[in-house]
Amino acid sequence: MVPNQVPLSPLSFLDRAAEVFPTKIAAHRPAAEPVTYADLWDRALRLAAALTALGVGKGDRVAVLAPNDVELLEAHYGIPAAGAAIVALNVRLAPQEYEHILRHAGCRVLIVDRSLREQVEGVGDHVEELETIVEIGSGQGSAAETDYDDWLARTSPTRARLGLPDHEDDPIAVNYTSGTTGSPKGVVYTHRGAYLNAMGQALQFGLSPGSVYLWTLPMFHCNGWCYTWAVTAVGGTHVCARSFDASAALEDIERFGVTHLCGAPIVLSSLAEAGVDQAQPFTHEVRAATGGAPPSPAVLARMKTLGVEVVHLYGLTETYGPSLVCEVQPAWDALDDEQLAEKQSRQGVRTINVQDVRVVDGSLEDVPSDGEVVGEIVVRSNTVMAGYLDDPEATAAAFHGGWFRTGDLAVRHPDGYVEIRDRAKDIIISGGENVSSIEVENVIAEHPDVLEVAVVAASHAKWGEVPVAYVTLRGGSQLTEDEVIAHVRKRLAGFKTPKAVVFGDLPRTSTGKIRKNELRDLTTPLT
Amino acid sequence: MVPNQVPLSPLSFLDRAAEVFPTKIAAHRPAAEPVTYADLWDRALRLAAALTALGVGKGDRVAVLAPNDVELLEAHYGIPAAGAAIVALNVRLAPQEYEHILRHAGCRVLIVDRSLREQVEGVGDHVEELETIVEIGSGQGSAAETDYDDWLARTSPTRARLGLPDHEDDPIAVNYTSGTTGSPKGVVYTHRGAYLNAMGQALQFGLSPGSVYLWTLPMFHCNGWCYTWAVTAVGGTHVCARSFDASAALEDIERFGVTHLCGAPIVLSSLAEAGVDQAQPFTHEVRAATGGAPPSPAVLARMKTLGVEVVHLYGLTETYGPSLVCEVQPAWDALDDEQLAEKQSRQGVRTINVQDVRVVDGSLEDVPSDGEVVGEIVVRSNTVMAGYLDDPEATAAAFHGGWFRTGDLAVRHPDGYVEIRDRAKDIIISGGENVSSIEVENVIAEHPDVLEVAVVAASHAKWGEVPVAYVTLRGGSQLTEDEVIAHVRKRLAGFKTPKAVVFGDLPRTSTGKIRKNELRDLTTPLT
Repeated sequence: MVPNQVPLSPLSFLDRAAEVFPTKIAAHRPAAEPVTYADLWDRALRLAAALTALGVGKGDRVAVLAPNDVELLEAHYGIPAAGAAIVALNVRLAPQEYEHILRHAGCRVLIVDRSLREQVEGVGDHVEELETIVEIGSGQGSAAETDYDDWLARTSPTRARLGLPDHEDDPIAVNYTSGTTGSPKGVVYTHRGAYLNAMGQALQFGLSPGSVYLWTLPMFHCNGWCYTWAVTAVGGTHVCARSFDASAALEDIERFGVTHLCGAPIVLSSLAEAGVDQAQPFTHEVRAATGGAPPSPAVLARMKTLGVEVVHLYGLTETYGPSLVCEVQPAWDALDDEQLAEKQSRQGVRTINVQDVRVVDGSLEDVPSDGEVVGEIVVRSNTVMAGYLDDPEATAAAFHGGWFRTGDLAVRHPDGYVEIRDRAKDIIISGGENVSSIEVENVIAEHPDVLEVAVVAASHAKWGEVPVAYVTLRGGSQLTEDEVIAHVRKRLAGFKTPKAVVFGDLPRTSTGKIRKNELRDLTTPLT
Repeated sequence: MVPNQVPLSPLSFLDRAAEVFPTKIAAHRPAAEPVTYADLWDRALRLAAALTALGVGKGDRVAVLAPNDVELLEAHYGIPAAGAAIVALNVRLAPQEYEHILRHAGCRVLIVDRSLREQVEGVGDHVEELETIVEIGSGQGSAAETDYDDWLARTSPTRARLGLPDHEDDPIAVNYTSGTTGSPKGVVYTHRGAYLNAMGQALQFGLSPGSVYLWTLPMFHCNGWCYTWAVTAVGGTHVCARSFDASAALEDIERFGVTHLCGAPIVLSSLAEAGVDQAQPFTHEVRAATGGAPPSPAVLARMKTLGVEVVHLYGLTETYGPSLVCEVQPAWDALDDEQLAEKQSRQGVRTINVQDVRVVDGSLEDVPSDGEVVGEIVVRSNTVMAGYLDDPEATAAAFHGGWFRTGDLAVRHPDGYVEIRDRAKDIIISGGENVSSIEVENVIAEHPDVLEVAVVAASHAKWGEVPVAYVTLRGGSQLTEDEVIAHVRKRLAGFKTPKAVVFGDLPRTSTGKIRKNELRDLTTPLT
């Protein structure tokens, strides 16, 4: 052993937190007593020992299908401590999708919460590799093969610490992309990458031992953007919420003194809606990080009223979650709310732990920083995935030219800030002109009656494609299609104006992204 | 090039800060206009290019002898960007010591501030390897071979970025230990270690883009505990102070809105003395990190009045600066000032980036966590030095058994906190009993008339050794030797009571440590 070469691993975070803050609350739980860091550490050690006893070790993968509760949190430590990688499963998939993932990842063990057991009923019959299913919360007399709590209780920790992987480049997790298109791919995270993104996020988001982090983001989503590890790194407190409910979240924020939370824009807009009657801002500082789409000016304004500071992030599953952050500049103090919202709607600049983010043309040349020319965002970082599991072709395509290709199209502004214009497939080409669906969406979202909006292409006999808007209105609004169209027409060129407006709820992925492909399928050709 | 493997290096911090915060003030300077991050980056790029033009490259070392000003700060980037390691020289050494270091490190270039030029006069004649001396601030008509500003001005940056080292384990700095005993040794830091300690410190000390860091700690001391890099990592603002003056520091804190500073206890006690008439606390939050010796209860109380939060750190040159931090526990809120001061006087627990800190006996077994049994502090971390430059024997001794041996003796308390009892050589053995000089010092320091104290061993005919106290009194005090002895005798066993008390100023190393070896030499045998 040498004293100066230690593999980087988030496992060291929980070992340290248990050592330094043993009696501090590691996690509040919705339906049970909180657990201390000594508890959480003990549970993770037991989980590791229980898996080891099943023969799970290096190179294996263990799946967990569970809501945001302490079992999923501890699995982020116990499973890697056994040498395996965690596969945290999206809770909203179809049975065939679970089968596909479990088979593809070769999971030997599945830990499933009782509330989600039905979704994987019979999956064991179709996945040969799957040897053991452990059920969380099955309780006495259940038909479950193995009850999770019993399993941990009858296993003794076999080591004094969670320890470290042999190599920092060993896998720690495999995250299956939510798959709005194509088959889900298994994105491989390493201990090194997870450590570095957790440290970077903790620093970037201002975590400290006094931080209280509310789990409004699913832990299965990029391992909770690595906050499963980052919050533990500083010895902060996790607040588990098994499902997102805006009113409950507002209560939790007051009750537990929540200082930080993350979520898709729908999380923020729901909080804004639920908090509309809350006249007073929170009595303590709250920061909310959001990504997936820019926070709208309306949401930013409402958050300000609530005393919540919004941090806009951008990233993908392939980048361990956030890779860009809209860093606030000192000069922005002088801006009014509208100008500030415009600045904050941009995805921003690379986070501290990211080496490089560029916006490039087809020859990998930087586009000019003019806020006009659109290119593809490419990333270079220790926090870019190791690759897609058992998919060298897809990996090679994603890494073509020595950069990770995000597939997201953006401009770079003169101040260096990146702003997404569209996913390649979200560009609407009308009469040979490119229409950014996001640009149209932003304009419609400015209307005070509009809660949410998505714009997609409808095929059109004359123009090739035209924009169609799907709009969710605020309660009580009587806004009409003509009024929406007139609102846009006032602000944008004719070819960018939707030719049809459909009112109703928007379909979403389980991570809160709007399923634009579904909307596209719904959209009939126009003439 | 692969998109997911990037060498860890603090160079990436300045590249990013210049990209993200180009117009923000990177450093306030005492005698000149502040520099922005774009400026600092440009200067570092020019320095790298100028060194490259001299043939400096990988494996070389470049020395800088300068006060805490922007030139020394930028050298922390420009020199490593040229592939070389920075040797930041202590400003208070003797000519022979400079010669020894420059020769030992094989420095080909020395950058020296005009104010310190005399100290290295003629050094070029005695150090064969030294090819070029560049003088900072020599101005027109000076006899200097090369004026630093001219040199940078006539060199154009040869690359678009500071870039990255070939390997993260490449050396970034060599720090010569202040050498209270023996020949100074060259402690080698790597890019990886510096990156990880900078990130860890930034997180641990709560740095953010809004942080304003006052340079009360010399940058030459462990590269300013890695804050030369950590402050830049978050895009905070450095405030350079060419020498430490407590009144000026208090003014700087108000004037620049300083949020963070570091220093030896003498820095804090000087601030406390200078601020004694300041009735109001600062109007903004200020954190001061201190290490080298525990902050006394009196200093903690005075800092509290000033509104300064004190963070107690412990580390050595060999651990890139801080390795332990006295993390404040939530339960400490209930303590009174005296109890809190006792808790805070302990060196604490490992920082986030440190893998392991143990207190061990001679067989490398942990001593019990009982606050009683003394052992040696040993460390394992990516932030342990690569080794002593060209000194495999000393390196092997320091790494004996696979741990870095600090040589510091400590207990571990039941709560896991480490508290230093003594350096091995500071133990006084009197009549076969171990006397901790620190314990005696703490008791004497409690006396309201005592500003500072050091206790060392005097050889003694009967008892082998006895404690002797060297005391600096507060202005106006008439405290006598008998009164000091009586004060201690009331509180400690007879064998721990000093047999003699000497009043006067205490000799110090340039980093503020009391030169106990010098006091020992002064001390005559007693009978």
